[in-house]
Amino acid sequence: MGGDFGASVTVPAALGFANRYPDCELLLVGQQETVESALSQCKADPSLLERVEVVHASEVVLMDDPVEVALRRKKDSSMRVAAELVKAGRAQACVSAGNTGAWMAITRYVLKTLEGIDRPAIATAMPNQKGGTTTVLDLGANVDCTAEHLLQFAIMGTALAQVNKPDSQPSVGLLNIGEEVIKGNDTVKLAAEYLRASHLNFYGNVEGNDIFRGTVDVVVCDGFVGNVVLKAVEGLARMLGSMIHEEFHRSPLTKLAGLFARPVLNRFKKRVDNRQYNGAALLGLRGVVFKSHGSADVYAFGCALDRAYDAVSTGLLDRIASTISELTRLPAGSGADSLDPQK
Amino acid sequence: MGGDFGASVTVPAALGFANRYPDCELLLVGQQETVESALSQCKADPSLLERVEVVHASEVVLMDDPVEVALRRKKDSSMRVAAELVKAGRAQACVSAGNTGAWMAITRYVLKTLEGIDRPAIATAMPNQKGGTTTVLDLGANVDCTAEHLLQFAIMGTALAQVNKPDSQPSVGLLNIGEEVIKGNDTVKLAAEYLRASHLNFYGNVEGNDIFRGTVDVVVCDGFVGNVVLKAVEGLARMLGSMIHEEFHRSPLTKLAGLFARPVLNRFKKRVDNRQYNGAALLGLRGVVFKSHGSADVYAFGCALDRAYDAVSTGLLDRIASTISELTRLPAGSGADSLDPQK
Repeated sequence: MGGDFGASVTVPAALGFANRYPDCELLLVGQQETVESALSQCKADPSLLERVEVVHASEVVLMDDPVEVALRRKKDSSMRVAAELVKAGRAQACVSAGNTGAWMAITRYVLKTLEGIDRPAIATAMPNQKGGTTTVLDLGANVDCTAEHLLQFAIMGTALAQVNKPDSQPSVGLLNIGEEVIKGNDTVKLAAEYLRASHLNFYGNVEGNDIFRGTVDVVVCDGFVGNVVLKAVEGLARMLGSMIHEEFHRSPLTKLAGLFARPVLNRFKKRVDNRQYNGAALLGLRGVVFKSHGSADVYAFGCALDRAYDAVSTGLLDRIASTISELTRLPAGSGADSLDPQK
Repeated sequence: MGGDFGASVTVPAALGFANRYPDCELLLVGQQETVESALSQCKADPSLLERVEVVHASEVVLMDDPVEVALRRKKDSSMRVAAELVKAGRAQACVSAGNTGAWMAITRYVLKTLEGIDRPAIATAMPNQKGGTTTVLDLGANVDCTAEHLLQFAIMGTALAQVNKPDSQPSVGLLNIGEEVIKGNDTVKLAAEYLRASHLNFYGNVEGNDIFRGTVDVVVCDGFVGNVVLKAVEGLARMLGSMIHEEFHRSPLTKLAGLFARPVLNRFKKRVDNRQYNGAALLGLRGVVFKSHGSADVYAFGCALDRAYDAVSTGLLDRIASTISELTRLPAGSGADSLDPQK
């Protein structure tokens, strides 16, 4: 039901996904009438529809609903019902394009966090100059983070990066500031100590530009910084895109040049098309939960679904849990023992 | 002496600047021999050289010198001597392309901060979609900021934005996170209260993308966030630039397309050329101090010099001082009274 376009995007994207993955079954959660009407417009193959079930949820969390309203007053929302399906083991993952804050609060409330994880985090992959992606977290779930939280983010980010690089030990960088007056605050300095003491593949401090350089596989930061960076780079990309468009549409001559350059520009556009990176993971929950950009179209929402599938099929949750348990077995005094819930 | 290229960039850039501004006199501070050799290579008009004086400084702060070394052991560095010239009133502004941390520490030590300013901040202008620029601060001088500091940054940023828009009341946005779970931390929330109580043109909270949208004239944040954002957008811009280049150099056909598109691409490049935005202000000091990017070429370093000239000619320091004094005259309890050094 969520996102800017609701079922008119999520339903066809889900059918496309089911078509790509014949081993999958779909639970489409939302207002029955709306979902079924969107389904009927898709003219899907009947054999495909055998793997699709509509699960009715009478309420919808709106994009501007406060978290409290979504959590306490809309107990039969599609978000809530979807999360319950995961909790009950009927679904192995859930994906929404709706209100991020509500989605985080509801999935956290229903699913709870994994043992050893204090706070869930939002993570996404950003393209880098090496042709791969850099996993960045947290992107806005936690504005005030302790060093322990940053360590937990590193664990979860490592597990997420392994979805695409299964047998690797992804490198982790701690987002910090560079040559300027003071290098980092106390939290970041302490987090670096914890990370060095852990068995993660800790690279050290990285700076903002390292996200796009691909210096490391995983970049860890608090949710305030991560959110601001994510939005700033989205803003810059949009500005540059519209400037290129403007320049090629300035006169008949530049339009002609644009015609010659179109195949090249299209290739470029395809490479930087952020729809392919759609699908942020809500990490640290006892279930696989993804969040699609609200403005996602059918292709983009499908990418978020693919991401959730890959997370399930590569055992994301087990990997997080086993890394956490390895950490808690570290000798006392290594810093990592503060993960112990007794302390 | 500073930056990646030293006097071979700064000296010709300074002569070009003196040529543009016939009312200016130049003090070139550095090792006499090096500066004079660079000067002689410029083949400048003798009448121009009448306005140029070389001020000898025996030492040079290196790019990787720790702040303590620069400050305590190199007491005859070009940075130190330049700052002293400003303090003595012999220079009205100083510009360096050297080590940022050292430059900040030395100018702060020599010049001291303006009354009512606890901490200097680094500010720069970034291009926005409206065709103007957005002034962003702090970019890395202060990693841990209180709400009072953010208010002071807003005052200084407003004064800096007025250099280009003299009779305006620039709008100020407080960088915050958006729809996600928790909107901002306590510092940001308190800073918003202070800003609302001030007579600044406070717009409210803005997000990372608003920097490039041009939603406000001034964006205020702590130095950790600002530094990370600055470097992240630099990194993204570099990646996109190299991707466009790659696509147009993929084959003879794409190179041909690039030939047709070159005038358009050059226009685009010129618009987004970040050399024109070179020159960050070190605000809050009792003197006009600018910092050029270390990698600046002659054109870019010239832009930083122009920026310093504009700051002096439009009375930047007086504007900051008068805004601060207006604030301290606000009724007690407005939040802004915490600027009072007695409290």
